[in-house]
Amino acid sequence: MSLAEFSPCSYSRYQTLPSNLSSAPLTAFHVHAFKRGRSKLQVRRPLNITCSVAPSQVQSPATAVPVRPADAANKQECYGVFCTTYDLKAEEKTKTWKSLIRVVVSGAAGMISNHLLFKLASGEVFGQDQPIALRLLGSERSYQALEGVAMELEDSLYPLLREVSIGVNPYDVFEDAEWALLIGAKPRGPGMERAALLDINGQIFAEQGKALNAVASRSVKVIVVGNPCNTNALICLKNAPNIPAKNFHALTRLDENRAKCQLALKAGVFYDKVSNVTIWGNHSTTQVPDFVNAKINGVPVKKVINDTKWLEQEFTERVQKRGGVLIQKWGRSSAASTAVSIVDGIRSLVTPTPEGDWFSSGVYTNGNPYGIEEDIVFSMPCRSKGDGDYELVKEVVIDDFLRERIKKTEAELIAEKRCVAHLTGEGNAFCDLPEDTMLPGEQ
Amino acid sequence: MSLAEFSPCSYSRYQTLPSNLSSAPLTAFHVHAFKRGRSKLQVRRPLNITCSVAPSQVQSPATAVPVRPADAANKQECYGVFCTTYDLKAEEKTKTWKSLIRVVVSGAAGMISNHLLFKLASGEVFGQDQPIALRLLGSERSYQALEGVAMELEDSLYPLLREVSIGVNPYDVFEDAEWALLIGAKPRGPGMERAALLDINGQIFAEQGKALNAVASRSVKVIVVGNPCNTNALICLKNAPNIPAKNFHALTRLDENRAKCQLALKAGVFYDKVSNVTIWGNHSTTQVPDFVNAKINGVPVKKVINDTKWLEQEFTERVQKRGGVLIQKWGRSSAASTAVSIVDGIRSLVTPTPEGDWFSSGVYTNGNPYGIEEDIVFSMPCRSKGDGDYELVKEVVIDDFLRERIKKTEAELIAEKRCVAHLTGEGNAFCDLPEDTMLPGEQ
Repeated sequence: MSLAEFSPCSYSRYQTLPSNLSSAPLTAFHVHAFKRGRSKLQVRRPLNITCSVAPSQVQSPATAVPVRPADAANKQECYGVFCTTYDLKAEEKTKTWKSLIRVVVSGAAGMISNHLLFKLASGEVFGQDQPIALRLLGSERSYQALEGVAMELEDSLYPLLREVSIGVNPYDVFEDAEWALLIGAKPRGPGMERAALLDINGQIFAEQGKALNAVASRSVKVIVVGNPCNTNALICLKNAPNIPAKNFHALTRLDENRAKCQLALKAGVFYDKVSNVTIWGNHSTTQVPDFVNAKINGVPVKKVINDTKWLEQEFTERVQKRGGVLIQKWGRSSAASTAVSIVDGIRSLVTPTPEGDWFSSGVYTNGNPYGIEEDIVFSMPCRSKGDGDYELVKEVVIDDFLRERIKKTEAELIAEKRCVAHLTGEGNAFCDLPEDTMLPGEQ
Repeated sequence: MSLAEFSPCSYSRYQTLPSNLSSAPLTAFHVHAFKRGRSKLQVRRPLNITCSVAPSQVQSPATAVPVRPADAANKQECYGVFCTTYDLKAEEKTKTWKSLIRVVVSGAAGMISNHLLFKLASGEVFGQDQPIALRLLGSERSYQALEGVAMELEDSLYPLLREVSIGVNPYDVFEDAEWALLIGAKPRGPGMERAALLDINGQIFAEQGKALNAVASRSVKVIVVGNPCNTNALICLKNAPNIPAKNFHALTRLDENRAKCQLALKAGVFYDKVSNVTIWGNHSTTQVPDFVNAKINGVPVKKVINDTKWLEQEFTERVQKRGGVLIQKWGRSSAASTAVSIVDGIRSLVTPTPEGDWFSSGVYTNGNPYGIEEDIVFSMPCRSKGDGDYELVKEVVIDDFLRERIKKTEAELIAEKRCVAHLTGEGNAFCDLPEDTMLPGEQ
């Protein structure tokens, strides 16, 4: 029996209708705009084709008029039940919902995404009144896996999840995206130098930056997770000059969460008592988890944990080696807690930061109060009003202990920047990265 | 460097104090009772040991008095930061919270659990005012992976997650459990007959039934996911005579969710328009997804989908083959959507069923209105007031089409029951299971 014979789900392609047909007898419709350059006024009417396999495998029935033939280079398509038309505002129970939000996830067939996508779809990130469209970006090689993920999302019947589309071309998938969660990156092969990894992944993020610049919402928020994430984020924003550089983040939230847990354990308190933890700098072994300004029950950590040696030496090592220990124990990298930290990172931008507290994010340096090199992506303490934007926290005290370490992670980021100059439009690259500073347990 | 040298988290063991010490200067405490027979009045005071590796790897500092030496046979221990003492009611922000709920997950190192545990911890299942204790049951072989899962739960900083403990002995892990989600089961080896699988897994569920009977809460709700789940649930409840048989469920919710998705796709509507879908019988290829009583927008499906051949033939096949297609596409079984369906199953018991609708669950037959054999576990339409209990829906019409198929799945369950008579205390087993009715994509 061939795959197509028992393919499980109905697949719909869209027929593009001229916009003056939008008053035609469509009982409900939703504007889709997947292709670069397609007018948003065009309305696509579903042509039901009973199949949810890849578009290239679909046998078009004689009655269908496929206006957008599927081919390998252009695979962005709505998926299965998510091609169904509907009008949110016409439905009684959804009348109080917000407008649909479009969220892109790259590396969508990977394990981090396999956790993250279901969290996004469940409403736990953006709220129970926020319908969501998920755009899954993968590779040619992972296309079937993307379909598998889309099928599992179908079977989950999440009421807020109104659109799922999958594709391999960022210029299609990123269109009108309001959030881009960039997880996909090439893993480091055996013996590969960090400089080579920077180049390979930098090219991916340069391309994705160009695609965001071309088709995403002008207010898109971008969180870069794929490593080396700070410099990937820098490359990405440099290739997207029409999107504010402030909208780009490199994920250091898992490091912050791990730091909070270690401080809680050492102090013998529950983790919700720990606040004001900053991760400074690069998401690498030069990162600086800041216990100097951190608090436990509102009291400076140094007054609660009287073990200076532990704070100055072991603490940072524990935070950084966590991923490596997890690999040893669990045999896999920490996909679930990474996904949780991405959720935390988004939530920190869409909900007001609790009074007096802050969160860490790798952000573009442009007028920072700490004398850190400008024009790099550096993890800093941030606060948000909950509008998706943030401001730097200005009152953190950098003592000599911190300054020395911050200088080192800053120097590393400056060196990484020189190493990718060919990808940021700043001339010839010069690579001088003697140390391997990849965090254990990460690729 | 040895593992212990950079082990990342503080590990605490508990010192059992006499209960008259509970007024001693412990600023906050929480009653733990992990061991069978231990008085709940005993209070355990944490002894901080700077390590979150397995108890057997912990080097006790000289000041610690380990009152419960860890050994391989008795590994149920609180984990890392979750050994921290606290008093929920003393904390301002938690004063409106419910009492801690204890949830056991078996097969806790597996992929379904890896999704499920984080959903339970996030509050999306039991609500944002429900603090939770997670008890992770695994095997000796998976013990390190259990620790990895516990570490990722630590790093996720879920405020509602107040206790995590891991263990390999159900008599420890099930103590006072209010929910038992039994996912762990042996996968079928190459060439293994279904009868052999029934025997191997039946033994696991017989033991777990005995353990539930001995130590769990008398009102524990049990959801059996490990296959063959109906007969495993029957074995489990037969070995737990002091727990109401009504409290045991076999998971058929993923089948229901898939059936709803397929009907939605065929009708060209969004899945939230589909209601009243029953899965009758066994979680196997004899199951009967009921389109006869199902509704779309409140109208009988047969009036919406005018394709009788599709309904009578293709529909069921599509539901059943979904898992197999997913394996082909995605290369793994459908862990994420299975976890979602477990969440749905629990939610259906702890929230009132919407007026006029119902949900499917494999339940113990004891006075059912449909003439189905008594004393088996059969998936049926159920309704709940949201109190954890359910009642059978009585008004469903079984027509000739359904009756014929229901007879077949009933006969299979009766045969499976005969095949495990040695595990239910009903004499010698007699196995006559000619067909392989395992659902594709399941183990």
